[in-house]
Amino acid sequence: MAKELTPRSENYSQWYQDLVIKADLAENSAVRGCMVIKPYGYAIWEKMQAELDRMFKETGHVNAYFPLFIPKSFFSKEAAHVEGFAKECAVVTHYRLKNDEESKEIVVDPDAKLEEELIVRPTSETIIWNTYRNWIQSHRDLPLLINQWANVVRWEMRTRLFLRTAEFLWQEGHTAHATKQEAIDETIKIINVYAEFAENFMAMPVIKGLKSENERFAGAIDTYTIEALMQDGKALQSGTSHFLGQNFAKAFDVKFTNKEGREEYVWATSWGVSTRLMGALVMAHSDDNGLVLPPKLAPIQVVIVPIYKKMEQLGVISEKVDTIVAELKAKGISVKFDDSDNKKPGWKFAEYEMKGVPVRLAMGPRDLENGTVEVARRDTLSKEIVPLEGISEYIERLLEEIQQGIFNKALDFRTKNITKVDTWNEFKETLNKKGGFIWAHWDGTSETEEKIKAETKATIRCLPLDNEQEEGACVYSGKPSKQRVLFGLAY
Amino acid sequence: MAKELTPRSENYSQWYQDLVIKADLAENSAVRGCMVIKPYGYAIWEKMQAELDRMFKETGHVNAYFPLFIPKSFFSKEAAHVEGFAKECAVVTHYRLKNDEESKEIVVDPDAKLEEELIVRPTSETIIWNTYRNWIQSHRDLPLLINQWANVVRWEMRTRLFLRTAEFLWQEGHTAHATKQEAIDETIKIINVYAEFAENFMAMPVIKGLKSENERFAGAIDTYTIEALMQDGKALQSGTSHFLGQNFAKAFDVKFTNKEGREEYVWATSWGVSTRLMGALVMAHSDDNGLVLPPKLAPIQVVIVPIYKKMEQLGVISEKVDTIVAELKAKGISVKFDDSDNKKPGWKFAEYEMKGVPVRLAMGPRDLENGTVEVARRDTLSKEIVPLEGISEYIERLLEEIQQGIFNKALDFRTKNITKVDTWNEFKETLNKKGGFIWAHWDGTSETEEKIKAETKATIRCLPLDNEQEEGACVYSGKPSKQRVLFGLAY
Repeated sequence: MAKELTPRSENYSQWYQDLVIKADLAENSAVRGCMVIKPYGYAIWEKMQAELDRMFKETGHVNAYFPLFIPKSFFSKEAAHVEGFAKECAVVTHYRLKNDEESKEIVVDPDAKLEEELIVRPTSETIIWNTYRNWIQSHRDLPLLINQWANVVRWEMRTRLFLRTAEFLWQEGHTAHATKQEAIDETIKIINVYAEFAENFMAMPVIKGLKSENERFAGAIDTYTIEALMQDGKALQSGTSHFLGQNFAKAFDVKFTNKEGREEYVWATSWGVSTRLMGALVMAHSDDNGLVLPPKLAPIQVVIVPIYKKMEQLGVISEKVDTIVAELKAKGISVKFDDSDNKKPGWKFAEYEMKGVPVRLAMGPRDLENGTVEVARRDTLSKEIVPLEGISEYIERLLEEIQQGIFNKALDFRTKNITKVDTWNEFKETLNKKGGFIWAHWDGTSETEEKIKAETKATIRCLPLDNEQEEGACVYSGKPSKQRVLFGLAY
Repeated sequence: MAKELTPRSENYSQWYQDLVIKADLAENSAVRGCMVIKPYGYAIWEKMQAELDRMFKETGHVNAYFPLFIPKSFFSKEAAHVEGFAKECAVVTHYRLKNDEESKEIVVDPDAKLEEELIVRPTSETIIWNTYRNWIQSHRDLPLLINQWANVVRWEMRTRLFLRTAEFLWQEGHTAHATKQEAIDETIKIINVYAEFAENFMAMPVIKGLKSENERFAGAIDTYTIEALMQDGKALQSGTSHFLGQNFAKAFDVKFTNKEGREEYVWATSWGVSTRLMGALVMAHSDDNGLVLPPKLAPIQVVIVPIYKKMEQLGVISEKVDTIVAELKAKGISVKFDDSDNKKPGWKFAEYEMKGVPVRLAMGPRDLENGTVEVARRDTLSKEIVPLEGISEYIERLLEEIQQGIFNKALDFRTKNITKVDTWNEFKETLNKKGGFIWAHWDGTSETEEKIKAETKATIRCLPLDNEQEEGACVYSGKPSKQRVLFGLAY
């Protein structure tokens, strides 16, 4: 088989890289850190986008579009924000190229220097809140519930396809509210939307929680996160929702007249998920044979491969297949009949396994005689012979079962990989030998958090939302602690 | 009424600007030449995107995503291409900001200069063909039918909302083919898709044609265009499809092995429409009261306004309205019931007129008694009283009638504004007094075309595809001509 992956057990990181390339999801481009999202990868992203967009609209949000460029001076207006993003941003300084007379080369025209440099947006709070100043005067203009689908650029030094790229695609919500409570409610509403999307569509269990101060978004009062566990025991932050308080309203002077006629600064949230979710999807479920896709996000849910020796057999098989295809399509199931004659069935089987197509049907002359078809599940790699009678209902149920099965498997893995530890030795041992989430007491200080990170690279992934209060001693400092938090190595 | 537009007859250009702002479609941002597309404008763009995307997929295309940045050296590889775009592009030269110790200001970090400057894509042929080199080896890899939805930047000096902006949103198709004929067929297939979209969805009649050499895309062998006529008699190029020959394949060394086993350069097309279509939509149909939207692209197709004096009346009206809303939604018609009590009906009428909602229902206590409702058409501004019995079927038919009516009106206007002229005086007089398309003989030389442009600003909009051959004399030079071409002033 031409397309083999490095096994996960041998080199997980190489397995991921191999898989993203060989399943035709994405590849590195000629531009440092920027990826090309290939058609098959983009088709999955489009399905993610469609579901998320529907969920945002159902919760009252509308889409809009703001400029790609942010004037440098805007950037500097919120101190924590610029501190967080200045070190890794692409800067536009000129607006023209020209032919150099001497070298005959195309060069930047020094006469076309911008008065003020423009930053390619790494996130849009500053340009958006500068715009909101003109949109918001009265409490009647609130809430403003706006989302944007866009590309952003962060000049990361070490990049990995989907997980960390200089340019990535995302959605960023930016909402404005009349009260603090309303803004906090919005922040939580969205983290719930993200969790629902991750669990019901990506089949990926997540833990919802608050970030510690060290891990907050630059400019936020509170950052909510959903954290997922990958098969190598590392955590992946999959979506964040920020309560921004009045920080951006103050930086951009956005006030409104409240119901009592007094002027107040506006309350803000922002929230986003990105093409990073593609990386999470790959790493949460896939195996050494290739992608495993949850049916709800699979561009092709069912593939049908004919098995034949003579061309006339293909004709008879195709006739039968056409009725199956029609039945499946009528149920809204996406199906591909691969009757290409330049590839052997074995090659096709391996190819669709690599691409994570949830269900494969194989049909040969004997199946036709017996009124059966071979049905193979991608997630379990199991096969069975099924009667053609009622096949579309069978597949419909099977797809649901697969969606649930993939989720259950990931949940089971996560359950086994959350370890409660009470001593620093246990902490280090668990981290080294097992990985996963470590559930330990912490004294609540940034100082301790930084020391733990320096010694182990582990970070606080979150303070889970449904946390129980429990008296204890910090696993590192021994100081008193009111609750356990989730530690882990992270992507 | 708060929101008044400058009448078209007084100042068409100001009318357009007023309308785009007052209908909440878009506004200028703090970044020179870049616009903010507001939620209502973006909702229309989303409807355009959805239809176009469906049409591209139905014709076998898939979406992908390529980098925002293009290395400067790629740009220089196709001579005509760089010539066309170098003068107006945003150049990224640095990848970091820093705090200046002395001034305490955020400045560009001189130590973070890129080795090679990056151009923010003005169009993606170069980065895409550099990628295709690795994707195409054999005739089995062809055709490659890929589209991208993206933002692009062209540093235009004079910008106007939607019509000409430094950043705009668009789709760009980039296809690769084994033969010249196949690439030409693709180019024509797409110009037909664009024309179908313009006429059936935007209700905007267009003329399909070939561009003259002067007006071709930089790097193309042939450019096909759809040209629409705006109400001020100026033409608007609304979509283009380019046959690129082997120009980009040669510049980026993209070869394939054909069926006979010989190496050949790949044949290419590219094609795009952009948020410019929003400008076309506004200018083609709207009037001095505001937007006129074709129902197929209207975010809200029907608005219902209750007319009442006492709050209890609103309750009774709402009950009746709820059943109408349910019936309309069941037919896939988007409907809004505006029962906000802080605005008067008259204010609402004006507001939805401004926003171009195709159908407005007004319902008061008397209507309830009589079992009727007042139905107002946005396009004709006519009203009638209609029985509630069968109202949803009535509205369904009415929306179709409006869609067709708007198209017919625009077609009628265009028909009256294509003028056949045979002398240079007639040409100039028609251009000055009437505008519109001028249908005249041309000797086929760039020289004549340039002289006509220099004297009158008129350009050749296209050589229509269904052109009849006709012997004649060039309206400017008097030299022999084989066909008439379409001239006009253009946006």
